[in-house]
Amino acid sequence: MGKRSDAFRPAARVAGQKQDVWTIINEAATNSPKQPIINMGQGFFGYNPPTFVTDAAKAALDRVDCNQYAPTKGRPRLKQAIATAYTPSTPHLSRPLNPTTEITITTGANEGMLSAFMAFIEPGDEVILFEPFFDQYIPNIVMAGGVVRYVALETPRNGSTQKTSSADWTLDVSKLKQAITPKTRMIVLNTPHNPIGKIFSETELRAIGDLCVDHSILLLSDEVYDRLPYVPFTPPRALSREIAQITLTVGSAGKNFYATGWRVGWLLGPAELIQHVSAAHTRICYSSVSPLQEACAVGFERAEELGFWEQSREEMRGKVRRFCDVLDELGLPYSEPEGGYFVLANLKKVELPGDYEWPEVIKGRPRDFKLAWWLIMEHGVAAIPPTEFYTEENQGVVEDWLRFAVCKDDEVLEGAKERLRGLKAFIKG
Amino acid sequence: MGKRSDAFRPAARVAGQKQDVWTIINEAATNSPKQPIINMGQGFFGYNPPTFVTDAAKAALDRVDCNQYAPTKGRPRLKQAIATAYTPSTPHLSRPLNPTTEITITTGANEGMLSAFMAFIEPGDEVILFEPFFDQYIPNIVMAGGVVRYVALETPRNGSTQKTSSADWTLDVSKLKQAITPKTRMIVLNTPHNPIGKIFSETELRAIGDLCVDHSILLLSDEVYDRLPYVPFTPPRALSREIAQITLTVGSAGKNFYATGWRVGWLLGPAELIQHVSAAHTRICYSSVSPLQEACAVGFERAEELGFWEQSREEMRGKVRRFCDVLDELGLPYSEPEGGYFVLANLKKVELPGDYEWPEVIKGRPRDFKLAWWLIMEHGVAAIPPTEFYTEENQGVVEDWLRFAVCKDDEVLEGAKERLRGLKAFIKG
Ligand SMILES: Cc1ncc(COP(=O)(O)O)c(C=O)c1O
Ligand SMILES: Cc1ncc(COP(=O)(O)O)c(C=O)c1O
Repeated sequence: MGKRSDAFRPAARVAGQKQDVWTIINEAATNSPKQPIINMGQGFFGYNPPTFVTDAAKAALDRVDCNQYAPTKGRPRLKQAIATAYTPSTPHLSRPLNPTTEITITTGANEGMLSAFMAFIEPGDEVILFEPFFDQYIPNIVMAGGVVRYVALETPRNGSTQKTSSADWTLDVSKLKQAITPKTRMIVLNTPHNPIGKIFSETELRAIGDLCVDHSILLLSDEVYDRLPYVPFTPPRALSREIAQITLTVGSAGKNFYATGWRVGWLLGPAELIQHVSAAHTRICYSSVSPLQEACAVGFERAEELGFWEQSREEMRGKVRRFCDVLDELGLPYSEPEGGYFVLANLKKVELPGDYEWPEVIKGRPRDFKLAWWLIMEHGVAAIPPTEFYTEENQGVVEDWLRFAVCKDDEVLEGAKERLRGLKAFIKG
Repeated sequence: MGKRSDAFRPAARVAGQKQDVWTIINEAATNSPKQPIINMGQGFFGYNPPTFVTDAAKAALDRVDCNQYAPTKGRPRLKQAIATAYTPSTPHLSRPLNPTTEITITTGANEGMLSAFMAFIEPGDEVILFEPFFDQYIPNIVMAGGVVRYVALETPRNGSTQKTSSADWTLDVSKLKQAITPKTRMIVLNTPHNPIGKIFSETELRAIGDLCVDHSILLLSDEVYDRLPYVPFTPPRALSREIAQITLTVGSAGKNFYATGWRVGWLLGPAELIQHVSAAHTRICYSSVSPLQEACAVGFERAEELGFWEQSREEMRGKVRRFCDVLDELGLPYSEPEGGYFVLANLKKVELPGDYEWPEVIKGRPRDFKLAWWLIMEHGVAAIPPTEFYTEENQGVVEDWLRFAVCKDDEVLEGAKERLRGLKAFIKG
């Protein structure tokens, strides 16, 4: 027995994880009496990729080379298509992006970011994240031996009483400066942002980028929602040649083409950086899914001419609007997103029943977990409690908010609205 | 400048890699004057997956749920199909494999094995590999902070003068015992074996498995070629309940269904182990490609009834035979594989031209690299030098061998044979 439990002992990097938000919410959704649940929790799409992309995938499945190992850095056609698509937003290069040296394909943005951490983070190196953060960053950084330092964005001042904007979540640059130490190796940025929908302003980005340049820090810019901006969107690499030189940009076909299950992502940046990301990726996944890379290549090649990007953005903006209507109707404040497909609603006004029986998994958690649980169980709508995207220290600032993913069919959104009208009886004031 | 080069510095785990064999051989193939090259180097298939599998993939591309994130542990249908397929070869369980707890889907076997290393290897832990080894294991182990210990298999005694069998590559169990230390955490096994085609005997497996049980060592059994055995194949988990308890089995849809580019693999084993592998996988890739998982589920569900496994094995055995014919014709000895799709040919009798101009990348390498280079440049056939699968210390034992992948169309194999007949003029004796 002693022996056996010894053999079964996990490594520290995977041990002692508490149950994550996705598991809790998905299990609650499965066990709710209000079936079928309307799931506005996880950010997967409620509809298919466009047919010009799925048709390309089907055609690729008939081609021998598309079914066999892709080159470890990605299929040349996809890298070329991405180079073409990103060159206009990389102006300081003064030439097209080089598909062979400045782009590498990864297994989703997630494994792409892990590859970047594995490529540059030595045990003990520090990585700065802004709060709220996309929760998957943390295990990825920890896996590389990195130590996370947090800088909380300022929350909207009147977020619980009036409608605000994701632009009201601001960066206090002095806090960022304080977080930088000689061990800081990387800053991770997410614009457009999950969960707050913020598009970082050029002023903020320049401040961050210049700090990176001054302190020889790499900037990892997670731009997976880059095709869904509702205000002008500038990526950090567009700001100056110096900033572009230390910036790695992350993209995701899953988000661009409504295909989160395809696991195609990419990193682009200076050849000196990309070579190491590729090396790490080769050691992690060897290569990424070949036929779907080919389909994404066709996606990029044809999106512009088909007006797909514009249509995609306008459709999503319409979904945001459609959903926010019910919040307006209920008098529930929300933070209007500048980009992406998440809406943060403030439910401070919602009074939870005092005698409600909370399950164990929820009891020790902040109020947003209670709100989410109750919404699933009593109203049949799933949303994500955003305290999960904060350190314990700062969770208080979002304990009245919930994140709703609106990347769902319009009928689904209408169904959600109908159910949410049931909140009326619980709203005070 | 100082600053900048600082920011660009890669982590040790990806730095200072020498050019790997795949890059050298692929670049040589591209630059050879003998175009088109007949590529028997890398083990990708020269033909498509069976249509019942690609049709299933196309159907999955029309389903919303198949295009979105799969559960992190894999699509339930695929896990069920794998449980059904592997239950008969897991007899000591005395019940069907549990698809929910005993199987987890990964991004190819490669990322599956990385997940296993990440789940159990702490920095400084030792992992034992047999030489020759599949080269990707090493960076995966190193990434987890593991230290590799090598145990060389005995090479066939008369391999350079007469035809031998992959069964003549044997394990000296006393050498394995010597390699075990208190830090040994895992032994990695590969059966059927790449590159030697060996199917480990029950006696060998029992010796390895019992050592693992006695010393609380995990056994990671890479069985990606499990559907291509030409002699009876027993996996270690079938030997005893105790061995099954410490064994993780690795499989690959890429190998089973001729779809190396799909990146679908799996691990199966005791729930206590699989849970940690899943946890690591979630941190590495989040989840694996969803529509192609669905296709692989259909593949497993229908393979038996369609006679696909048997047909697949007989076809490949035919290709092995077809290719070996030319070696017999030339009087070149080879090691006949017991499984898989690699043939190791012994080219000791081939006299390389004394005045040949070797490029820099080849100069410091053992003779098999010269053989491979010359074969590509002068005869238009690519094969892999197997010293890459050995530590420097032991490379000498295979410097006269080359690995040929026969998973190619019959016409391609015939073309290769025709070209190899050109070796006649260089064979002495
Ligand atoms: C901010 C952010 N980055 C990265 C990802 C992961 O993208 P992918 O599915 O391509 O791995 C997500 C997915 O939700 C995300 O929200
Ligand atoms: C022995 C062995 N293990 C694992 C793999 C990797 O398999 P996959 O393509 O599923 O990652 C290979 C591929 O060549 C192999 O030969």
